[in-house]
Amino acid sequence: MRFSVLKQNLEYVASKMAAIVSVKAIKPILFGALIEVEDGKIKVSATDMETSVKMSLGESFLEGEGAFVVDAKLLEEVARNTLSDQVHFTFEENRLTYRAQNSNYDLPFMEPDDFPPIHFIEEGQSLSFPRTVLIEMIEDVLYTCATDEMMKSLYCILWESEGKLLRLVGADGFRLSLSEQDIFNTEALPEFEDFRFLVSLKAMKELLNYLKEIKDDVVTLVYDGKRLCLGNESHRLLVRLMDYDYPDYRRVIPKTAKTKVVLDREEFLKKLRFVYVTTRTSGESVRFIFTDNELQMLARASDRGEADVEMAVQKEGNDLQIAFNPKFVIESVQHARQPKLELSFLDESSPMQINETDMPRTINIIMPMRMI
Amino acid sequence: MRFSVLKQNLEYVASKMAAIVSVKAIKPILFGALIEVEDGKIKVSATDMETSVKMSLGESFLEGEGAFVVDAKLLEEVARNTLSDQVHFTFEENRLTYRAQNSNYDLPFMEPDDFPPIHFIEEGQSLSFPRTVLIEMIEDVLYTCATDEMMKSLYCILWESEGKLLRLVGADGFRLSLSEQDIFNTEALPEFEDFRFLVSLKAMKELLNYLKEIKDDVVTLVYDGKRLCLGNESHRLLVRLMDYDYPDYRRVIPKTAKTKVVLDREEFLKKLRFVYVTTRTSGESVRFIFTDNELQMLARASDRGEADVEMAVQKEGNDLQIAFNPKFVIESVQHARQPKLELSFLDESSPMQINETDMPRTINIIMPMRMI
Repeated sequence: MRFSVLKQNLEYVASKMAAIVSVKAIKPILFGALIEVEDGKIKVSATDMETSVKMSLGESFLEGEGAFVVDAKLLEEVARNTLSDQVHFTFEENRLTYRAQNSNYDLPFMEPDDFPPIHFIEEGQSLSFPRTVLIEMIEDVLYTCATDEMMKSLYCILWESEGKLLRLVGADGFRLSLSEQDIFNTEALPEFEDFRFLVSLKAMKELLNYLKEIKDDVVTLVYDGKRLCLGNESHRLLVRLMDYDYPDYRRVIPKTAKTKVVLDREEFLKKLRFVYVTTRTSGESVRFIFTDNELQMLARASDRGEADVEMAVQKEGNDLQIAFNPKFVIESVQHARQPKLELSFLDESSPMQINETDMPRTINIIMPMRMI
Repeated sequence: MRFSVLKQNLEYVASKMAAIVSVKAIKPILFGALIEVEDGKIKVSATDMETSVKMSLGESFLEGEGAFVVDAKLLEEVARNTLSDQVHFTFEENRLTYRAQNSNYDLPFMEPDDFPPIHFIEEGQSLSFPRTVLIEMIEDVLYTCATDEMMKSLYCILWESEGKLLRLVGADGFRLSLSEQDIFNTEALPEFEDFRFLVSLKAMKELLNYLKEIKDDVVTLVYDGKRLCLGNESHRLLVRLMDYDYPDYRRVIPKTAKTKVVLDREEFLKKLRFVYVTTRTSGESVRFIFTDNELQMLARASDRGEADVEMAVQKEGNDLQIAFNPKFVIESVQHARQPKLELSFLDESSPMQINETDMPRTINIIMPMRMI
């Protein structure tokens, strides 16, 4: 088996494989990328057993048949440091050789039979999304997702549909974000069935990267109840869905508010950052004091002193004192896009809801901290 | 004591102080910046007991007298997040307050009496250097300096003069670099005495940053045998010289060569990087094989395979096989500026000398590794 490929193609494909493979794999084969001939073309695959990818290498020459597995991160490094635009692979007599302009690399390889099989979905429900809207919705919720794999059901984003509506939800136990929009054309899809599934944080990040790289207006996912598949012959992604019970997010979203505040996003963010200086190293809370058309923010830490900032707001309802982890509030405000935000509160021990005005379907919920 | 200052001035001065203070100080006062009134102006100082800095704050208003010490890194954070262009400090009744547009910060402070005194040099030998040449010479040697403070005499750069000549030397036990140039006008300075001193890596970095920030053509250092001082009323740097015996670098520089090779720097660097892929994780050596007008580089690691690259060179003298840590060779080649390099060798167990052709006074020495 011999084939030639452009350095830039190999570098791109190898970087995708290196991103997918496990960081801590139990078996060395899981660090590998499978390179094989399929339908007269060279295909490269990698998997961490949850997220899998298969790409075409776009070879300019191919002779013979065969398959081998190489360490994905090593392949990426070799490709990046290649000395010419064209690269030649030879896999013969138990030896894998990589040639480019006066250089040879004998690459170690693993047996393709040991590589875990990747079953792309042949049949399932087709879900079509406007690509840029889906990107925005994912970005709205991804940052609140738990980042620790041990958190299981919170190390996921919940996807659910209700008629024309897609809803994504992320949460980490201290905060929750929800984004929903009418994006399905149910008339064009009469047999559309509502779905509800969980996608792990790692798979969500791969999916987001993929969506940002392609240019199509509409992206179609195939869903078979256990897996999600997208892409085409030259770049296909397969995601195994998580099998956990997602917490009931509806219980967390406050039904009523006794205090509603509208304020300027930019000013709020700057002032939050100023008071956050005090508590950054200690994780202390910031106290928010809402009185008529004024918000005072107070923070104190034994070794870093005490900060106190005021800003004008529009307030309806009760005065209120409530405390938050300022890091969480800063992150929510950073992710908002509109110039004005609406904060809603029930009382000092109930969560705050942050909405962007004119974007009613993005909701951020942050649990309060106890005031000392 | 009350004073006002521009946010941008404070931010700049605080960042300089934060860079100087120790990372691991024994006493909290060593994390601090001393702020005091001197000659009717606000001066800010910091020290790690080896390198000290004193800067003017450029205040726009000042009333009263006084002095206090604040945590330098906290001050930097507060300054960076300040909400207006102008900042007001008040130090009264045992309270230090920082005010800017609807915000207050009560900063913790320490007693100025506990702050270690910084004695800037009043008298000494004046050493004047062309600034850009000094910057280049420092950059030529700084990267070979040992980065571990425990290495004592190698965690330094050696400065020495010989008549008109300045020589800087850096070494880490595996390699050495030397840069020398005629930069002193000894006729204009008849009482010029030759000097020899050691400056720590940290102080060298501060000095380099300082030299890059100022615009003067000539920079003057004052040297009193134990300390080095530079700068002016608004930004002054004091460096305590190291009191170690520097190894005899002359012994390391080969006197004769039996093989001399001239090669293209860019091509050599690219090919080194390609073979380095193999040995990067294991620290294995790369074998250099010089035969008539050809260099072959070979690298092997049990888990990453085997790479083999060839390039055309001009060779004089004996054929040679010799092995090096490719990381060190890559770093030397990266720091070179000329398109051609000259490599000189005595034998396989003696160090390689790398010179830039047309720049005879920058020398890099790299110890070989044993060939397996």
